[in-house]
Parts: sequence; C-alpha cells; structure tokens
Amino acid sequence: MKDKVTLILFSDQLDKALAAFTIANGAAASGQEVCIFFTFWGINLIRKSRLNFNKKNFLQSLFSLLNRGGPERSKLSKFNLGGIGTLFMKILMKKFNMPKLSESISLSKELGVKFIACTTSMELMEISKEELTDNIDSFAGVTTYISNARESAINLFI
Amino acid sequence: MKDKVTLILFSDQLDKALAAFTIANGAAASGQEVCIFFTFWGINLIRKSRLNFNKKNFLQSLFSLLNRGGPERSKLSKFNLGGIGTLFMKILMKKFNMPKLSESISLSKELGVKFIACTTSMELMEISKEELTDNIDSFAGVTTYISNARESAINLFI
Amino acid sequence: MKDKVTLILFSDQLDKALAAFTIANGAAASGQEVCIFFTFWGINLIRKSRLNFNKKNFLQSLFSLLNRGGPERSKLSKFNLGGIGTLFMKILMKKFNMPKLSESISLSKELGVKFIACTTSMELMEISKEELTDNIDSFAGVTTYISNARESAINLFI
Repeated sequence: MKDKVTLILFSDQLDKALAAFTIANGAAASGQEVCIFFTFWGINLIRKSRLNFNKKNFLQSLFSLLNRGGPERSKLSKFNLGGIGTLFMKILMKKFNMPKLSESISLSKELGVKFIACTTSMELMEISKEELTDNIDSFAGVTTYISNARESAINLFI
Repeated sequence: MKDKVTLILFSDQLDKALAAFTIANGAAASGQEVCIFFTFWGINLIRKSRLNFNKKNFLQSLFSLLNRGGPERSKLSKFNLGGIGTLFMKILMKKFNMPKLSESISLSKELGVKFIACTTSMELMEISKEELTDNIDSFAGVTTYISNARESAINLFI
Repeated sequence: MKDKVTLILFSDQLDKALAAFTIANGAAASGQEVCIFFTFWGINLIRKSRLNFNKKNFLQSLFSLLNRGGPERSKLSKFNLGGIGTLFMKILMKKFNMPKLSESISLSKELGVKFIACTTSMELMEISKEELTDNIDSFAGVTTYISNARESAINLFI
C-alpha cells in the first residue's frame, strides 16, 4: 500500500539535487511510484534557463537576474569557491562518466518520476508556468503534497 | 494508526521555516495530529525577541547578542545579501497577501499543532524556559521525538 | 515490521551531525535497528583525519587538502565565524558534559548502529576504502538505501 516515494526538493544546490535525483531514479528504476515536489529554490531546477525581463517592476527584474533558473546553474552547497569548486565537481563527474544533473533530470522523466511544481512558491517568486520547463506533470499546493506523502514509504525534505 | 505528522525544525531560516509551517498547517487543517520538534537553531523561532544579558559570562552574552531570537529575525538561506534579499522576500509576501512567518506560527497554534522544545538544545545554547514564547506545549528530548515519529506517516528534518 | 530507522547523513556540519547521532543513538538505545547512510560531505565524518596526497593529480590533492576528513574538523552550519563559533560551541558542549561528536560516533557503534558508506559519493570524491575509518559496516549504493528506507518507520535526510 504505502509504496510511493515523495521528495520535497527545496534546494537548488548541485550536490543536494544530485542526491535527490539519485534517490528518485533508484526508486523509480526498482518499480516504485516516485514524485518530486519542487518548492522554493528547487523550482529553479525546472525553470528554463533563459532570462525573463517581463517582470512588472525593477526589483523583480533584478531578482530574476540574480536567481536564474536551469540545472546547469546549480552550485555546490559547500566549497563553491566562486564557482571553482562547482566546476571541479563537474569535471570529476565527467571523468567518472556520471550523468550531469540535467541528464539525471531527463532520466527521471523517462523512468516516470512525477514532477509537481509548488504553486505557492511560484506565486511568491512570481514565476509563471511559461517560465518552467515542459517536463512538469502538475501544479499543486501543500494539500496535494500531504496526500502523496501520507501514501509514501519514503518522505524526504532535501 | 500512523496518522501523525512530526517535523524536526532544525533551521531558523525564513524560507525553511515558511516551508515547515506551510506543511504543518496544511496537515493540521486536514485533521492530522501535527507536532513540531524545535531543535538547535530552530529554537530561535520560539524565543522571545528581547535580548537577555543575564547570562553567566561574557562569551554567552556575546553569543546571545549574535544569535537573537524571534521569527522576525529569521533570514533567507540563500540570497540574504546582508538582509536585502530577506527584506525583498517579505515585500513579495506582503504583496501577495501571504501570511508573515509570525502569523503562520500563530495559525499553527490555532490549528492545534503541538510545539515541543528540545531540552538538549536549550541546555547547550543556555536558553531558559523563560526566554521562550508562551506557545510551547512541552519540553522534551530525543526519546519523545522518536516515539512521536514512529507513529507518524510523515517525518521530515527541515 | 517497519521498525527500522534510516538516516541519510549528507552534511558534515557539526550541528547537523550532532542532531543525526542524537537521533540515531536515541533510537538504538530504545532497541530499534538504526542505519546511517553516509553520503556526499557526510563521508567526511567517517574519514581518517590524516591527509592523503596519493591522489593522481594536482587538482585532487588540492581538493583533499581543502576537504579534510574526521569529525573533529566538522564546523557549525551557522555562526562558524572563521572557527570561533564552532570553538565556542565545543566549549559549551564540554561545559555541559555533552559528548563530543567523535564520542557520539563511538557510542553509535557500541549501540549497534550500522554505518553504510555511499559508494557513488566515494567514487565521485575519489575516496578509497583505506581512507575511511574502521567502523563502517558496508559499502553500498542507492538500491541498498531504498530497501532499508522502505522498512523504516523513520527516514530523514540530514
């Protein structure tokens, strides 16, 4: 019965996102129903990487310049060192033939992992559906999260 | 049977705290028994905001000056930018009529969410019961957490 | 049936590690089967503290100099202040006769907590089995984590 896996992906940091997708893909590959609930900074991982200056005011345009989306902009939570640490981690990942974050995200979709974008976060950060990538299964709030999580054997906040 | 929701609120950061109370309030509103276990920095969210210089030594007074309590002092985990990012987030929350963190905390109590303050953290950070707000249901350690968590369908570390 | 406790220890920060071992030891002391899955930075907590310059290239030696192992190098996630905050926390812990992180780790082993080192993280960070401490029960990947987690009443990502 409680066979699902529900992850809240709150962070958009490279190391945490890699951990989340490793778990999601591992569980999906072994036949479990997995859903990732993208909330707050995690929303950045399912944003298109192009800039959007169509914001209503200056502050928001500034914020959207700062808080850019796309998995390739994801940085390490530790030893980022102005980008050097993150670059180094990416070199290591390539060396060991590990999938890039964007590839893990694509694999996730192929394995049937459900992507849910948190509407409260989207509203707060003024991110429209058009700014998000096409791989999102649904847009929902906390009630949907809770009903999913209650049916899940594994619940994590990452 | 396993109908409870138990959250460990370890962080006192604004974005994580908002996520925690959104989940807690959502679950409580749908009739589930929710308890939040405030530990480590999370204790700051249930501290009175006034300063306490009655500490026994200089180092502790210094630390209490640095590590001030109260939800209104909570900062973003990312893009705080010396307070500008946090201020900007608060402006956005106001604009979209989202409740402030302190209002989410009050709502939590109205919905019957139980607040448990971790006694080990209180001891370590030398925070007395008098320094905490009046909305705490009990003071307890890890054993209480574990017995609660074992009866919970949703367990998160935030 | 679902009597286990499975923790993912992703972080090597002092405060988060203390929280993790407090939960692990509390659960183990009350008779539950506990396993900690050390992944990413968490691997540092089960590394020997000596430096290893036998890396294959300069970048890796540099990274191993930066990312040193051993629980005594663990720092606070907040108010580290160049080490002063962490030192202060350690003084407080000593004052209140709380076990050091290394002592909590030893206690964990005495209580039968199982330590699993994530092989994907080891590969990525080029950490060999010889660089890890002797208290590790097994080396495994995400599949092992998931099967453990599914049998657990408490799953946390720390």
